[in-house]
Amino acid sequence: MIEITGQSYIAGNWITPAGDTFESFNPYNKESMYSFASCGPNEIEQATRAAESAFQTYRNLDGKTIGSFLSTIADEIEALGDQLLEVCDSETALGRVRLTGERGRTCGQLRSFAELAIKGEWVQASIDTAIPDRAPVPKPDLRRMMKPIGPVAVFGASNFPFAFSTLGGDTASALAAGNPVIVKGHPAHPATSELFAHAINRAIEKCDIPTGVFSLLQGLGNDLGTDLVKHPAVQAVGFTGSERGGRTLMDIAAARPQPIPVYAEMGSINPLFVGPNTLQAQAESIATGLSGSVCMGTGQFCTSPGIVVSVASEVFETTLKARLSETPRGYLLNPQIAASLQASLESLNNHPQLEWLNRADFEASSMTPPNAVFKTSARNFLADETMSEEVFGPVTLYVVCEDEAQMMQVAENLKGNLTASVHADEDMELGRKLFDLLDQKVGRVIYNSYPTGVEVCPSQQHGGPYPASSISTSTSVGVGAIVRFARFVAYQGTPDSLLPDALKNENPLGVYRLVNGELTREGI
Amino acid sequence: MIEITGQSYIAGNWITPAGDTFESFNPYNKESMYSFASCGPNEIEQATRAAESAFQTYRNLDGKTIGSFLSTIADEIEALGDQLLEVCDSETALGRVRLTGERGRTCGQLRSFAELAIKGEWVQASIDTAIPDRAPVPKPDLRRMMKPIGPVAVFGASNFPFAFSTLGGDTASALAAGNPVIVKGHPAHPATSELFAHAINRAIEKCDIPTGVFSLLQGLGNDLGTDLVKHPAVQAVGFTGSERGGRTLMDIAAARPQPIPVYAEMGSINPLFVGPNTLQAQAESIATGLSGSVCMGTGQFCTSPGIVVSVASEVFETTLKARLSETPRGYLLNPQIAASLQASLESLNNHPQLEWLNRADFEASSMTPPNAVFKTSARNFLADETMSEEVFGPVTLYVVCEDEAQMMQVAENLKGNLTASVHADEDMELGRKLFDLLDQKVGRVIYNSYPTGVEVCPSQQHGGPYPASSISTSTSVGVGAIVRFARFVAYQGTPDSLLPDALKNENPLGVYRLVNGELTREGI
Repeated sequence: MIEITGQSYIAGNWITPAGDTFESFNPYNKESMYSFASCGPNEIEQATRAAESAFQTYRNLDGKTIGSFLSTIADEIEALGDQLLEVCDSETALGRVRLTGERGRTCGQLRSFAELAIKGEWVQASIDTAIPDRAPVPKPDLRRMMKPIGPVAVFGASNFPFAFSTLGGDTASALAAGNPVIVKGHPAHPATSELFAHAINRAIEKCDIPTGVFSLLQGLGNDLGTDLVKHPAVQAVGFTGSERGGRTLMDIAAARPQPIPVYAEMGSINPLFVGPNTLQAQAESIATGLSGSVCMGTGQFCTSPGIVVSVASEVFETTLKARLSETPRGYLLNPQIAASLQASLESLNNHPQLEWLNRADFEASSMTPPNAVFKTSARNFLADETMSEEVFGPVTLYVVCEDEAQMMQVAENLKGNLTASVHADEDMELGRKLFDLLDQKVGRVIYNSYPTGVEVCPSQQHGGPYPASSISTSTSVGVGAIVRFARFVAYQGTPDSLLPDALKNENPLGVYRLVNGELTREGI
Repeated sequence: MIEITGQSYIAGNWITPAGDTFESFNPYNKESMYSFASCGPNEIEQATRAAESAFQTYRNLDGKTIGSFLSTIADEIEALGDQLLEVCDSETALGRVRLTGERGRTCGQLRSFAELAIKGEWVQASIDTAIPDRAPVPKPDLRRMMKPIGPVAVFGASNFPFAFSTLGGDTASALAAGNPVIVKGHPAHPATSELFAHAINRAIEKCDIPTGVFSLLQGLGNDLGTDLVKHPAVQAVGFTGSERGGRTLMDIAAARPQPIPVYAEMGSINPLFVGPNTLQAQAESIATGLSGSVCMGTGQFCTSPGIVVSVASEVFETTLKARLSETPRGYLLNPQIAASLQASLESLNNHPQLEWLNRADFEASSMTPPNAVFKTSARNFLADETMSEEVFGPVTLYVVCEDEAQMMQVAENLKGNLTASVHADEDMELGRKLFDLLDQKVGRVIYNSYPTGVEVCPSQQHGGPYPASSISTSTSVGVGAIVRFARFVAYQGTPDSLLPDALKNENPLGVYRLVNGELTREGI
């Protein structure tokens, strides 16, 4: 068993910063547990200096070494055993089943990025050979590949304490690309983060990696995060959280003397569209499926379906109400989320154009909210922007349209979203129109299913137009996430001995390369 | 012959806006030529509305149609014949030879992007097939590809009136990806831009493309550009120009309610490093090569070598002075650039730590500046940031180092640059150290050559860390530029009939796709 000390971890050293203290909170019994001290400018300075120095070695390590490091991190996470699940469950109330699954996903991600680093193909190597006798001027030899960019700041998310936090996807992809990482730990699960720092510390020692590749700065309040993003050594930011938090970091990063990219994965209402005939035919099954998606993780997913758009259906309404009300209440992650959800439910309940279909009590101090469905007309929905705001929790809004045209109008008025779902087996013409429109609005269009449950694979796209994401071209899930933390460098007329392995004539890594416009694994 | 009317072109219509008028200027004889009226908010509104509407058709055109459209634009540019060269030469003094070459490059770019659109592989299609019986949850079918993002604003550059202006690389890549383009014409070559609008107008008619895909808004002053970037319909910006101009647009774009990417290719001093032994062995040939690169295009290239970093060498210094002084003076593009260069030369001349090695006269009103080389010590250079500022014109600074360590220090202190060149045949250990350092500082490292002359090919990288570029991961030259104007969209569990062709089971486009992690052209 590892003792939770409340310290931060900077480049191989455990330190106790001098900042304000804060405590880990148990949502089950509402008791405080471990005490932590907040990092400040001094710790940022130490962590960034160590990261810059480590970068000079780490960036040049071969893919096998980096891959083995990432696999070892996964092994060491597993080696934390039940303590990790127990500590995290006590800090998040996510439950052992969910956390076991999320641990698997987190280790799976690390191993996928390990494979990617070992294979070495992610650098998109490209070679155009010289034509010395070309007229009017000779063509030079040009070769291009992706290279790491430098220290990356990662902000852990409260709702994915494993998969999108200390050693989650952002950290894994930044490390895989050859960058050091400085994590600003989420104050809602600091003990969990501390355990992860132990895991990566062991991997760093075992694999003989420069210690500066990783630091974990614990802290409460916004200053630590904003100061980190302002630090000139930081070259990119990975963030998962609220639209307000993400936009704050975007604005800070854009105002730096050297602006840097912020890859923020933010809010989303994930609309679900059901064609009129399809609703008629499948009212009960879609209501049941939707209810499961709304309640999953107590609605604390960025892909939680916040609105369902269709025509009126009593069967659908009745089934949805019943399914939601009969689903046992889940726990919320922390008192801040509980307070925010309580305020949202009160405001929705008091809204004259909204009807709470399965109204239930929810005390301000309770950590277990009702699974709620509200109803409004499309006309009202279109007239009031506040109805499109994300509510973080097990809440959905049934937007009742008069006809297909009104459904299209709702779709046209959507802001950027991570996902949109379409159920249209009996409404294929509407389905076609919705698909054509929705792929301009979202990162992932889902047919006949529900948005929660984000598969980790190369074809996944987790990132949509603003405000779903800050940089809609990128994904934060799947191996495609690695390119966020790398940039292309070209080498002109360069002798083989000075070229990175991926660009050498004989192709020692055996990777696919674009040679004179054609993909090949052959050497030059 | 096409009559130059001074009008702007909005979605197929020639219009005369009500804004301030300005005149086309002839650098050869300093006479005014054509008169133009400036566009304002009304014209922006018309152009963006037409672009949004055209996008709904254009985005769904197949690659062959888009490719044929781009090829036809190239044909129509060539069909403008000598008038294009004459008009542009009279507006820019770039000369027929250079402009003939640049026209070839511009049409070549358009045809490369045409091929790319026809081939259809640029969308990076990826498919992960379903595993319905996977435990604990089924794996859904996921497919991902790049899709266009919407109307793109393009700012023409003064120094490349063909290749980086109205129908240059930014416009070609945005159109190829399926986006409408609104060009803010550069006021230094408005008649040239007008001719280009005629060319694309003919291509739009011949290929039956929605007219809203292209507008050219002429105008003087900054408001037109900033208002265009602020317009909510605009989804991305392409810009080539000064650091100040680029940063202004970046700041505006970042402050929008919906921030958008600005792909700005800005300033660069393109350092050239020569190892001590290599300088001894090749002083004359490197001085000659450098002089040619400095004088090319009267130094008005973003890749012009602004500093040369080496040890002291009298032979090198004497030869460089001689070559620069014997090279006939070239013309500058416009009076603004002439005034700015005059101010820079005066300031450099008055700098106590700088020596103008081949001092020559340059009157304030002259359009033909001297080819100048200044000298300073590395110690002085490192102590004074202003010496690292780009001077737009045929000017270079010889930074004399005491030893290799000081050369490395200069390299370490560099900001982001588009290129760095290394001559180190006799200094391979220094060459290795420089390569390792410089690929963190620049987009393209060049061995044994000079930075001017940017080859257009897939392995080209034209874009470096800030302030060379706003988004260092992207390139503005080469077919890789297309991804700037597209983003990934994933489709989950979607029937073949609703999928884009690139993702359909049978692979009707015959493109390479990543299917379950392996590149293949096979169908599913």
